[in-house]
Amino acid sequence: MNPSDVESCDLLIEAGYVVPVEPHAVVLEQHAVAITDGAIVAIAPIAQARTRFAAKQVVQRPEAALIPGLVNAHTHNPMTLLRGIADDLPLKVWLQQHIWPVEGAVMGPEFIADGITLAIAEMLRGGTTCVNENYFFPDVQAATYKHHGFRARIGLPVIDFPTAWASSDDEYFDRAGQVHDQWRDDPLIATAFAPHAPYTVNDANFERVRMLSDQLDVPVHLHLHETAQEVEQSLKDYGQRPIARLDRMGLINDRLIAVHMTQLTEGEIHLCAERGVSVVHCPESNLKLASGFCPACALARAGVNLAIGTDGCASNNDLDMFGETRTAAILSKAVAQDAVALDAFAALRAATLGGARAIGFDHLVGTLEVGKQADIACVDLSALETQPLHHVVSQLVYATGRHQVTDVWIAGRERLVDRQPVGIDMAGVVANARQWRQRIAGLHPA
Amino acid sequence: MNPSDVESCDLLIEAGYVVPVEPHAVVLEQHAVAITDGAIVAIAPIAQARTRFAAKQVVQRPEAALIPGLVNAHTHNPMTLLRGIADDLPLKVWLQQHIWPVEGAVMGPEFIADGITLAIAEMLRGGTTCVNENYFFPDVQAATYKHHGFRARIGLPVIDFPTAWASSDDEYFDRAGQVHDQWRDDPLIATAFAPHAPYTVNDANFERVRMLSDQLDVPVHLHLHETAQEVEQSLKDYGQRPIARLDRMGLINDRLIAVHMTQLTEGEIHLCAERGVSVVHCPESNLKLASGFCPACALARAGVNLAIGTDGCASNNDLDMFGETRTAAILSKAVAQDAVALDAFAALRAATLGGARAIGFDHLVGTLEVGKQADIACVDLSALETQPLHHVVSQLVYATGRHQVTDVWIAGRERLVDRQPVGIDMAGVVANARQWRQRIAGLHPA
Repeated sequence: MNPSDVESCDLLIEAGYVVPVEPHAVVLEQHAVAITDGAIVAIAPIAQARTRFAAKQVVQRPEAALIPGLVNAHTHNPMTLLRGIADDLPLKVWLQQHIWPVEGAVMGPEFIADGITLAIAEMLRGGTTCVNENYFFPDVQAATYKHHGFRARIGLPVIDFPTAWASSDDEYFDRAGQVHDQWRDDPLIATAFAPHAPYTVNDANFERVRMLSDQLDVPVHLHLHETAQEVEQSLKDYGQRPIARLDRMGLINDRLIAVHMTQLTEGEIHLCAERGVSVVHCPESNLKLASGFCPACALARAGVNLAIGTDGCASNNDLDMFGETRTAAILSKAVAQDAVALDAFAALRAATLGGARAIGFDHLVGTLEVGKQADIACVDLSALETQPLHHVVSQLVYATGRHQVTDVWIAGRERLVDRQPVGIDMAGVVANARQWRQRIAGLHPA
Repeated sequence: MNPSDVESCDLLIEAGYVVPVEPHAVVLEQHAVAITDGAIVAIAPIAQARTRFAAKQVVQRPEAALIPGLVNAHTHNPMTLLRGIADDLPLKVWLQQHIWPVEGAVMGPEFIADGITLAIAEMLRGGTTCVNENYFFPDVQAATYKHHGFRARIGLPVIDFPTAWASSDDEYFDRAGQVHDQWRDDPLIATAFAPHAPYTVNDANFERVRMLSDQLDVPVHLHLHETAQEVEQSLKDYGQRPIARLDRMGLINDRLIAVHMTQLTEGEIHLCAERGVSVVHCPESNLKLASGFCPACALARAGVNLAIGTDGCASNNDLDMFGETRTAAILSKAVAQDAVALDAFAALRAATLGGARAIGFDHLVGTLEVGKQADIACVDLSALETQPLHHVVSQLVYATGRHQVTDVWIAGRERLVDRQPVGIDMAGVVANARQWRQRIAGLHPA
């Protein structure tokens, strides 16, 4: 090769294994990913990449696998500060006697920013690079994610009762519009409407959400068919199951990010497939709150795009997408009564490309492909917990712990180096969490 | 205090938190555990312990919780070398086309010793100190566990067909008797009969197991009611469900360690409670193989002693008792349709005292109490993944990763220091696992 043919690139990451997710079920051995201006410009065998590129920085990880950064497709990350505050309780008691009173007392910009900073550090240390967020104060959320160079789709909350964020329907929509406007052209941050749930949002508000989501071309992020009680209540109040009620208002469409979905008829599964609805499976929250079992395999087999989310730390109690993906894979088999259901490749796909698709980021991330943003997690597979390494993707899904993530890049920027989040004062984050513990303990005696 | 009143002890471990398991639901803050001759001699507030004891060694862990070492109540640890060799397959294909042919080719003392050494390193790094083992070559297993100072109940295999271990019924029982004799008085190692399963052991062999287990006073470790097919097959072959068939032979008693138990009638649950049967719940194996759902909460509420096991690494694919306990806790709630089921304290109890009771070791271990052996895991809770620390046991069960285990003692001997297993050449273990990968790849093309 003529020296003049050598291309420059910002970063060349050489790895023992690259799992691009697309094409499906492929593991590339001894490959390198070349990155320039935050985007992937090549994926090639290491020797070939070394000849082709003069890289400003070279990172060598011969014992590791590079995977697309994981996409946590449903979270309430400020609630990370409420991790373990109340467990093992019936949903109503949990919400009404514990979560809501504490939230009422702490909700505000400081709680949001501190909770999200703690969550970002935890997510980076677990290979997550992108999040679909659902909480109050989306303005503070967006600014916090942006500050840390973390990719996020931020929900604009809509709920029928007043909160610290907004006191009337009009204020919810006004503030939503302002936040959307502020971030509409950002490369990392985007917005979605986040009407809370069928039982907390009336028809008029849902119709407004539908109209605005069409006009602004943003997704609708909604807890849906989470429990049998939700469906029963809807039948009582509206004479329709929630999906039928939303369909009447035109919301069952390819903008819908439907979260939980533990209660589904075959007709509803096929309706979701036909309309291009994405489903976010949150298996550990569904188990822990005894909500029910999402038919993840039946959804996937019907052609529904499947994503994975941890839900908030008050009901999980972590942001571990490795653990969540593993739970999704094994639980799907038991629910489908079929050990072949949601295999390791399909589970990893749901945790990456499925999430990116659900939140409308699949043109940007979700796979390692030329032209996409370099959102990458590097996973050390040399630990004895992933030995012998018979199959890379089996080990990634069924045996790898999140603590095996060593490096993370988002849009080509190093965000985790040697398990340390870049630009986050870890001791400060922990000290701050301890202060919140004291404040919350005063409100909520154990 | 008069200086002459100061007692000597071998080791004083001071910790931010001590979770003794017995008494139930207690967390002691700023306590120390004093150890002499391998046994716990006191648990007291740190200041008091410092005055009372002159310790040869003091270990200070102000940010950590001490818990009883976890008891993995059902494993096939040589199969750790088969981690991820074949996943996402129907049980029959998995066994007949993958696991059995490979086992047939590799089974022997070297495979057993190497697999168990890898497993011991993994278990120590995850806070497990005691195992209920179920595989071939119990002589090699026992010697390997003993060599590493690891506590184990070793199953003496009985199965109706010849293997590399024994070629006839008589040889199985003869060799079992020899291994039992060799280890009968060991402080760390004991034996159990391990008839494989109702569908692989005939009535004559079960009757021999029953008689010998009574005579020798050892438990019977048995896969039982693992799948619906097992129950159907038994009805066809014997006209009885497996539990009824075993009851006819006198095996449904307080020596029985019944593993899996995903198919149970209410009558069977109450029979197990009445007779003092222990049930080992292996939730992740049951999910991954689509075996079914063990009614863990119903068993516990009926009064059955509940233990937790990972099963072998070919069907899990790890030996992570933190993960398994968390899965047991959250899955129980969904299966019971009750978010209160198997709360964090009950789950931790199942993973410690429940396991110890199941395998007849509860006079030795399973709790941190004066007089018991010092089998202890030390878990760092300062990591941001377990912050804020609202509730210690909630964090231990729902948020802690096994990589937060820093130290482990078995019978008062340090077995893990700063996450490094004592006396195990980690690089050697990994290199050895890689050699097995090559050997197995030759037998079993991916």
